[in-house]
Amino acid sequence: MGKIKTVKFKLNTFEYEKPFHITGSVSDKVNNVEVIIELENGILGYGEASPSFRVNGERFETLLSLEPIVNEMIKGKEVRNYRQIFDIIDRFFSFPSIKAAVQYAVLDAFSEEIGIPVYQLLGGSEEKIETDKTIGISSLDERILDAKKFFEEGFRTIKIKVGEDLKEDIEAIEAIYEITKGAKYIVDANMGYTPKQAVTFVNEIYKKGIDIHVFEQPVQRYDIEGLKFVRFKSPFPVSADESARTKHDVMRLIKEEAIDYVNIKLMKSGISDALSIVEIVKAANLRLMIGCMGESSLGINQSVHFALGTGAFDFHDLDSSLMLKEKEFRGKYKIQKPYYVAI
Amino acid sequence: MGKIKTVKFKLNTFEYEKPFHITGSVSDKVNNVEVIIELENGILGYGEASPSFRVNGERFETLLSLEPIVNEMIKGKEVRNYRQIFDIIDRFFSFPSIKAAVQYAVLDAFSEEIGIPVYQLLGGSEEKIETDKTIGISSLDERILDAKKFFEEGFRTIKIKVGEDLKEDIEAIEAIYEITKGAKYIVDANMGYTPKQAVTFVNEIYKKGIDIHVFEQPVQRYDIEGLKFVRFKSPFPVSADESARTKHDVMRLIKEEAIDYVNIKLMKSGISDALSIVEIVKAANLRLMIGCMGESSLGINQSVHFALGTGAFDFHDLDSSLMLKEKEFRGKYKIQKPYYVAI
Repeated sequence: MGKIKTVKFKLNTFEYEKPFHITGSVSDKVNNVEVIIELENGILGYGEASPSFRVNGERFETLLSLEPIVNEMIKGKEVRNYRQIFDIIDRFFSFPSIKAAVQYAVLDAFSEEIGIPVYQLLGGSEEKIETDKTIGISSLDERILDAKKFFEEGFRTIKIKVGEDLKEDIEAIEAIYEITKGAKYIVDANMGYTPKQAVTFVNEIYKKGIDIHVFEQPVQRYDIEGLKFVRFKSPFPVSADESARTKHDVMRLIKEEAIDYVNIKLMKSGISDALSIVEIVKAANLRLMIGCMGESSLGINQSVHFALGTGAFDFHDLDSSLMLKEKEFRGKYKIQKPYYVAI
Repeated sequence: MGKIKTVKFKLNTFEYEKPFHITGSVSDKVNNVEVIIELENGILGYGEASPSFRVNGERFETLLSLEPIVNEMIKGKEVRNYRQIFDIIDRFFSFPSIKAAVQYAVLDAFSEEIGIPVYQLLGGSEEKIETDKTIGISSLDERILDAKKFFEEGFRTIKIKVGEDLKEDIEAIEAIYEITKGAKYIVDANMGYTPKQAVTFVNEIYKKGIDIHVFEQPVQRYDIEGLKFVRFKSPFPVSADESARTKHDVMRLIKEEAIDYVNIKLMKSGISDALSIVEIVKAANLRLMIGCMGESSLGINQSVHFALGTGAFDFHDLDSSLMLKEKEFRGKYKIQKPYYVAI
């Protein structure tokens, strides 16, 4: 009845409203892979992979080539036995975004079959979450314009990309702060600083009386000692992002006492490892935020349901779909800026 | 619709077929608390608490007194938002068996409401699990009689209680081994040895060419250094049981590198911490078994569904209900010794 009949992959390209610049990368479009699982009873489940070459080493071309392999491995499986399918799909560890999309599509199909939304299958912790909005790297004037716009639109958590120029970054934070007082700030260096630059950065910001709620991935992903150095020198919580892809990464970061926060992204971990990371981080008395790559509303839907279901996150950085030109909104949630609301 | 209308507690007393003797404790009966959750739509969800004064500091008398307090805290909550209810019930951390029973009754009611068994709500990993059967502490002759009986009944994993007399324990293991070759052994000292006694014990068994699959809780619960000492000296995997009640206990044991295995018992952790511990232990590349206190079939049902759903366990020590006199079998599973099978 609830058995998987076919899995289809489909390439969807979306343009950014304007080029999105972070440390070491500028994007004007994303190539995402839509995953459609059809059950023998006709029910459809949807997922989306948004591959990141920079973070995951993934290319959409390779993801598309996996379609027949995924079909062969999970065809005929019952979606209600979803952990069996998760275990099979965990073997695609080199393609975590497709892992997320297929695992989510399984949950989505199960959810449709029994008439219970995915967020309630996952525990129904929350009815709404608040998303931030992200200011990319650009000129000071442009950063200020963005900040003003987002604040006026109602966003009260603002994510600021830094990491290419320490001095300009400090000036930008100060200028943004002046026109968005009352907002919370997540600052993301995307691995752009050395450990000592990162410590200088937070000390300068602290001296100006500005509070940073989460300081993301200040240093190179494999520099766990550097991450720990920054964590212990920083007055603000330090988060792993690029350093924390699998549950094993997170366990190591915890053992090394290298972090205060983990930024979970389904595109880095799939649903299975993301669920593990939630439990690990809470057991270690650390904190969680959830982020995204370049997902459209179809992919952000996955993280919205994951966050509503688990209720695990202090901050939700789920704004990629708000930055993309989309013909059609495909989320099973409502947008009431800055909130995403269960339906 | 799926809102909680009332929570009822009911005392059920069960006699053991014969007195059950482990290190520092002999029981001839158990006093369990049945939890019945009724939803506004008339659906009923069932759970069972089997309190352990020795392990959890719990008494059935105190559990019964919690009925009005639990009612007040979760009445009107939707069972499909089960993580919200779990979070509330987590505050009963001093009463982990009632935490397990209430949290499971919530899942059971949700399961009945949507017509999906609990084990599939939890992921549907397995269709059957194999349980062991336990030989309590007694005379050598009695231990041998038990071993013969269990082996003839088809049990192929035999749990052997030790910890009161090192010399007798070694003799008993050797004698049991001679008549049950091909079986797997879990040996449980229930905190009865000193670290050095425990190391002597495993070395003697090893010299005789006998394999122990899991060596449970050799030393006192708070002696984490002792546990680590035994772990690093033992040729057999060492498991925490009494030392591992909450997810925070387990995280500490992992950080201290004190264990190879964790014995999860819902009665020690509730459903919420048990789910966390599954994820934590797997992320740390360690192993899991699942055990029980004095649950009847109603309570063992909880662990059977948990184990089938998560598929997380190498060994299932779920035999308490097989040792109790019960008028009525109340599990939502089938017994095909030594297996418990999903229905």
